[in-house]
Amino acid sequence: MSAQSGHALPGTRELRETARLMVNTGDGKGKSTAAFGLALRAWAQGWSVGVYQFVKSSSWRTGEREAFAALDELHRTTGRGGPVAWHVLGAGRTALRVTRDTDQAALARAGWQVVREDLARATHRLLVLDEFAHVLARGWVDPGEALAVFAGRPGLQHLLVTGRDCPRSVLDAADLATDMTKVAHPFDRGLRGLAGLEW
Amino acid sequence: MSAQSGHALPGTRELRETARLMVNTGDGKGKSTAAFGLALRAWAQGWSVGVYQFVKSSSWRTGEREAFAALDELHRTTGRGGPVAWHVLGAGRTALRVTRDTDQAALARAGWQVVREDLARATHRLLVLDEFAHVLARGWVDPGEALAVFAGRPGLQHLLVTGRDCPRSVLDAADLATDMTKVAHPFDRGLRGLAGLEW
Repeated sequence: MSAQSGHALPGTRELRETARLMVNTGDGKGKSTAAFGLALRAWAQGWSVGVYQFVKSSSWRTGEREAFAALDELHRTTGRGGPVAWHVLGAGRTALRVTRDTDQAALARAGWQVVREDLARATHRLLVLDEFAHVLARGWVDPGEALAVFAGRPGLQHLLVTGRDCPRSVLDAADLATDMTKVAHPFDRGLRGLAGLEW
Repeated sequence: MSAQSGHALPGTRELRETARLMVNTGDGKGKSTAAFGLALRAWAQGWSVGVYQFVKSSSWRTGEREAFAALDELHRTTGRGGPVAWHVLGAGRTALRVTRDTDQAALARAGWQVVREDLARATHRLLVLDEFAHVLARGWVDPGEALAVFAGRPGLQHLLVTGRDCPRSVLDAADLATDMTKVAHPFDRGLRGLAGLEW
C-alpha cells in the first residue's frame, strides 16, 4: 500500500507512504520461505509479526512454525526480537484432496475475518498472508474487497501476500511484487520431499 | 547435487541421491530471504546449518543474522533445533563502492576456502552460500571448480546458492533452481529501504 494507490487517508499520509503491500507469487519455490525470511528480519527489529496461513492445516507441523514459536518464546522470556502470532486457518491439502472446495472457501472467508480484525486493531507491524493469493485467485475472497480493506488499514502495517496466480489487480496495487519462476525442481527428477527442506 | 549429475561416488549413492544442490537467482527480491526461510526449516529439524555470506560486510548487522544467532543460542542452551554457524566473508558493498574488485576477488576466494574445508569435513547438513552465484558470475571462483567440489562432497550435505546471474552450468547441475523476477519494486516508486524489511 502506498500513497500512489489513491487510498491514503487524511492525516495518516506520512505513515501510509512507507507501509507496504508486498506479493510473492509464481509457480516456483520460495514464495513462503522468502516471506518467513522477511519475518525473521522483522522479528529482529522487535516488530510484532502476524502469520496467517491460509489453506494449510494445523495438523501439518512445519519447521517454520516451530522456529517462530521458539523466537516468540525467546521474546517473551528475554525481550529479544518481537512477538510472533501464528494463525493456521486452513483445513489442509491432503494427499487425497478430501477437503471439498466449499469447505475451503468457508475456511478462507473465516480466516479473512481474522485478518480484517487484526488489521482494524493494527495488531502487527508485519502481516504475512500465506497462500492468500491462491484464496483470491479462487475467488474465495473477492480481490476488490481485499484491496479496499488493505487500503483502509490504519497505521503502519506492512503486508506480505504469498501464493500462486495472484490476481493482476493485486499485483498492480503492490509496492513490491516478485515472481518466483521454476527453473528446475527435484520432484521433476523423482526426488521426494524432505523434512527440513520442504516443510 | 544428485546421482543424475554423474558424480555419485561408489558406496555413497544412497546418500547422494537425496543431497541437493539448490539455486535462488534472478533480479528480484527473495533470493536470500527464501534461503533463510529454508534454513529455519533445517534448524527446526535439528540440522546443523552453515551460512556463508559472500560480498556482505561483517559491519552490516542484519536481522537474519541476529535471529539465527538467537536460534543457535537457543539450541545450545535448551537443545531445541540445531546449531547455526554464520560466516561473514565479504568486505561489504558500501554506498561509494570503495572496495576494489581485486579485494573482492581475493576475499571471495578466501571465503571459498572456508566452504571447501567445511564441505570436506561434512560440518553441516545445510550450507547456504549467500551471493555465491554473483561470485561465480564475476569469475572470482571458477564455476567448473565449484561444481567439481560440490560433486565430490562427502555425506549428506544440502547446498543452497543465492545471487544474481548464476552461470548456466551451475543452474544445469542444480536439482532445484528458482528465478526470482522483479514485478514491482518499492525503490522504483522512490520508497527508501527499511530496517525490518530490507535487512
